[in-house]
Amino acid sequence: FSRSSNIVDVALCKCPADIVILNGKLVNVNTKEIQDGVSVCIKDRWIAYVGDGGEKRIGDSTLVIDAKGSYIVPGFIDAHTHLAGQYINPYECIKYIIPTGTTTLITEVLEPYMVSGIDGLKELMQFFSNQPIKVFFLAPINISISPLIKDMPEEDLSYLLKREDVLGIGESYWQEVLAKKDRFLNLFNKAFKSRKTLEGHSAGAKKEKLSAYVSFGISSCHEPIKLDEVLERLRLGVYVMIREGGVREDLKEMAKLKDMPIDKRKVILVTDSIAPDFLLNHGYLNRVVQKAIDLGFDPVEAIQMVTINPAQHFGIEDFIGSISPGREADVLILKDLKDITPYYVISRGNVLVKEGEVVASANLVKLSDKIKNTIPCKPKFKSDDFKVICKREKRVNIRVIEFVTELVTKELVVEVEVKKDEVRCDLERDIVKVCAVDRKGEHLFVGFVKGLGIKKGAISCSSVWDSTDLVVVGANDEDMASALNRLIELQGGVVVSIDKNLVELPLPLYGLLPDCSLKETVDKMHNIKSVLKDIGFKFERPWLVLSILTCAAIPFFRICESGYFNFKENKIKDLFVK
Amino acid sequence: FSRSSNIVDVALCKCPADIVILNGKLVNVNTKEIQDGVSVCIKDRWIAYVGDGGEKRIGDSTLVIDAKGSYIVPGFIDAHTHLAGQYINPYECIKYIIPTGTTTLITEVLEPYMVSGIDGLKELMQFFSNQPIKVFFLAPINISISPLIKDMPEEDLSYLLKREDVLGIGESYWQEVLAKKDRFLNLFNKAFKSRKTLEGHSAGAKKEKLSAYVSFGISSCHEPIKLDEVLERLRLGVYVMIREGGVREDLKEMAKLKDMPIDKRKVILVTDSIAPDFLLNHGYLNRVVQKAIDLGFDPVEAIQMVTINPAQHFGIEDFIGSISPGREADVLILKDLKDITPYYVISRGNVLVKEGEVVASANLVKLSDKIKNTIPCKPKFKSDDFKVICKREKRVNIRVIEFVTELVTKELVVEVEVKKDEVRCDLERDIVKVCAVDRKGEHLFVGFVKGLGIKKGAISCSSVWDSTDLVVVGANDEDMASALNRLIELQGGVVVSIDKNLVELPLPLYGLLPDCSLKETVDKMHNIKSVLKDIGFKFERPWLVLSILTCAAIPFFRICESGYFNFKENKIKDLFVK
Repeated sequence: FSRSSNIVDVALCKCPADIVILNGKLVNVNTKEIQDGVSVCIKDRWIAYVGDGGEKRIGDSTLVIDAKGSYIVPGFIDAHTHLAGQYINPYECIKYIIPTGTTTLITEVLEPYMVSGIDGLKELMQFFSNQPIKVFFLAPINISISPLIKDMPEEDLSYLLKREDVLGIGESYWQEVLAKKDRFLNLFNKAFKSRKTLEGHSAGAKKEKLSAYVSFGISSCHEPIKLDEVLERLRLGVYVMIREGGVREDLKEMAKLKDMPIDKRKVILVTDSIAPDFLLNHGYLNRVVQKAIDLGFDPVEAIQMVTINPAQHFGIEDFIGSISPGREADVLILKDLKDITPYYVISRGNVLVKEGEVVASANLVKLSDKIKNTIPCKPKFKSDDFKVICKREKRVNIRVIEFVTELVTKELVVEVEVKKDEVRCDLERDIVKVCAVDRKGEHLFVGFVKGLGIKKGAISCSSVWDSTDLVVVGANDEDMASALNRLIELQGGVVVSIDKNLVELPLPLYGLLPDCSLKETVDKMHNIKSVLKDIGFKFERPWLVLSILTCAAIPFFRICESGYFNFKENKIKDLFVK
Repeated sequence: FSRSSNIVDVALCKCPADIVILNGKLVNVNTKEIQDGVSVCIKDRWIAYVGDGGEKRIGDSTLVIDAKGSYIVPGFIDAHTHLAGQYINPYECIKYIIPTGTTTLITEVLEPYMVSGIDGLKELMQFFSNQPIKVFFLAPINISISPLIKDMPEEDLSYLLKREDVLGIGESYWQEVLAKKDRFLNLFNKAFKSRKTLEGHSAGAKKEKLSAYVSFGISSCHEPIKLDEVLERLRLGVYVMIREGGVREDLKEMAKLKDMPIDKRKVILVTDSIAPDFLLNHGYLNRVVQKAIDLGFDPVEAIQMVTINPAQHFGIEDFIGSISPGREADVLILKDLKDITPYYVISRGNVLVKEGEVVASANLVKLSDKIKNTIPCKPKFKSDDFKVICKREKRVNIRVIEFVTELVTKELVVEVEVKKDEVRCDLERDIVKVCAVDRKGEHLFVGFVKGLGIKKGAISCSSVWDSTDLVVVGANDEDMASALNRLIELQGGVVVSIDKNLVELPLPLYGLLPDCSLKETVDKMHNIKSVLKDIGFKFERPWLVLSILTCAAIPFFRICESGYFNFKENKIKDLFVK
């Protein structure tokens, strides 16, 4: 965050600029105006001058860009994403984001931290800190339904809060915060002392519970899915991050906001992670801005929602978020505001995209073997491990996770037959087995799930939300064992086993991320979807379905290696109903 | 900044609130709306709940306020003032501000720091930190035209930046910053590391010089006096503090802003200090808000300019600036938005004004004798000390400070007669003497000033801008000595001597502030004005005229104990033109 003195000399015409952008239409997010005929002069990492007379700062080695007729726009900020939770290799992620004009990413990192602790996390932070675009982090705080996941050690939090590139404490689910208020007040007060933000996650909270949650000092939420939820949060002083990405697409529902005569300084557009095929084929946050404009938002207002608004939220507006003197030189040139495809991308004063051509890529930063070996368990599982034994009755009531939507589940009790002391899958009723096992292979729970549609085979996954468990869903025990064992051999991934034939996406980095190109990842995900469709799998994104089975936030019936978890009752539940 | 856990229980109806305000019209500065039927529940120092159903949080000892038909408004924030530069006793200052609804003051403290160093400053901070309303501070950095004023020691800055109640570095005049860029970059980078703001002062700067100044990371300016200056700063990303107070009244000129379709999130209303008679007879920042509304600003927008906008600027919006859960309970109730006179004032959860009656006052915090004895010089001056000797010629060219307005001066060269080896006042040409002497009485400079109108007598002052000097202006040497000696006896003040008859306002605290009631201060200032009018003094505010003679900012010809100072040339100048 330290400025150099050269920038002042450029402003005063005592020294030429490195880059002079001449005569563009400046999208001024400070005043919500478009100013024509503006020059932007860049020196080192900084915007040194904004105004007329850019010509006076051109020297022999100055790169001059004629922006006549084009728009000069601040680099976009994705204020909430999960770089380690979206099945995209870190190098590929940066590589593919570069051309899209997002120059700052603010990411959750709970996933690698849960898996590998502070040392593993540091490696990933090191990777992202050495890229041509900026990545900021949010301190993770280990919220999980699994009793194996311990609270974050004090020293880890202190370390992270001291880092300039950690902007706040990551999404703290409201149920957990309200349930453990003293722990969180203590934690949050530390964050405030370091002048960091508290990122919220208030899915489903309203009225008094929402107000109670906000009273902790929570200042954002990316979970509203309806307009009234947006308004309720804005009125309580909460920044609302409208999510349009790999998990959900909420922007269309929120489009009515555009006509409401309310102050929108606290409205932000985020991805909350992107789908690999979307990034490969369509773009990134630029497509979200585009969609907002297509839905009728004023273009400058839409751009404010990915520039000055998030910068103000995170208290870094003196450094990024607008084209103003003394800010980092994160600058886009667009031919048109109807097509948000950058003609130039400049990040920290470096040209990454020039006349539509990508001229810079991500940096390869080596990751250690340690983070590629995070599943110490042996591939030891046999079909018997998934047997559900019941020696008591002929018919028994069991709990089942029922899928309501791809993301939402509920607790269902069904009566099932016990055959040869065993409760089996009931394909007619669309009930199959689900299993969670910790990465050491020491704790294993087998339950049932309804509504996925599969008639045979099994699918396993090591990248699941709020947990380090491995999760397997299957219609038969052999394939469950096969899918799980292969997952362990790969040290992470998504594996489908159908009659022991395997289709897989390896995720060796932390057991979370692929080590291959984005194109390969997309192809492999396509194959997985395809074979799962063949066996009847109902939902579009099978990996998402497996991920949310362990999620500590969204309602309401989940699984971990120690049992089911019911959110309404906030407790672990057995398979058998007594 | 630490929140208590009781507030959560109030939100959840598990515990009654201390105060419940029922069914008011909430001025929601988050969304720029007025919401009817809203309850606000307060617990301890905090807003615990905002919404409907306030009744459910009423217990046996809850204070219930029926706000039906009234407006619930966040306490006002004065984002830029000079509590030690406005001739108002600190106790009286707080006492009179309380009923006006300003619950947060953000003050410069360069004046007491220059006089008494960090120890003296700590005393004043201690005083203001123990009041029913909040006072935040800006770290001073000793910008002066006097060579006797040294740069602030590093350890003082480090100490101040560590304090939570220091929000930034105080107004750093642009000329000085551009002239000593390395010093200031170093200083400012320290402030950024502590996540503090840089308050600006860019009077008269424009285009490249303004851009250069802003590129240091300067994020506010309270000096624009014309609309185009406001727009230029807003477009560069600078918060514009429109000043309406004791020094200038700029709001009317800026009223055109109200109709401009630009984003006004960076517009703030401030006093920059208040005149004692205004505070006594009219009010404080509430009158500024009132005037903005009378000038046609949308009332909610005007209120945003003294609440959420300054809170966002200073990065304390999670704590103050809106009526939202988890914010400090700084709440006003107004009967009407056409008359900004609080019916209730609640500050940090304490009721200060109840049904229009003031029920709390300022706290008396004892100040040491040390800060009441800050002029070590003896009252030793004789009329001969003010003689201007010239043994060379019969006629000589001298430099004179010419008053253009009450605040602006220029350098004038006039030919004067030398009589008996002496240059004397020339009352016909309205030229009288001006003298600056340091508080130890070791350095004294006598020059001339034109345009004040006085025909006899002298006036001295110890509270002058950007300097610790004592300044005397006079039409005869005897009265100059008398006014200066009395000033020293009083250990500070404003003294008029006419034929050795004295009229005075003692300012014994730091030599800057009175130790008497606001009423007495106003009476004494009135007397001073009155006798000065009798001897021909032209301007309305004589103390201001003397203050600005040493100012290190506004153009352009000033005085210190070592000579004149010309801003355009940035150097000390002699009396005699060679």
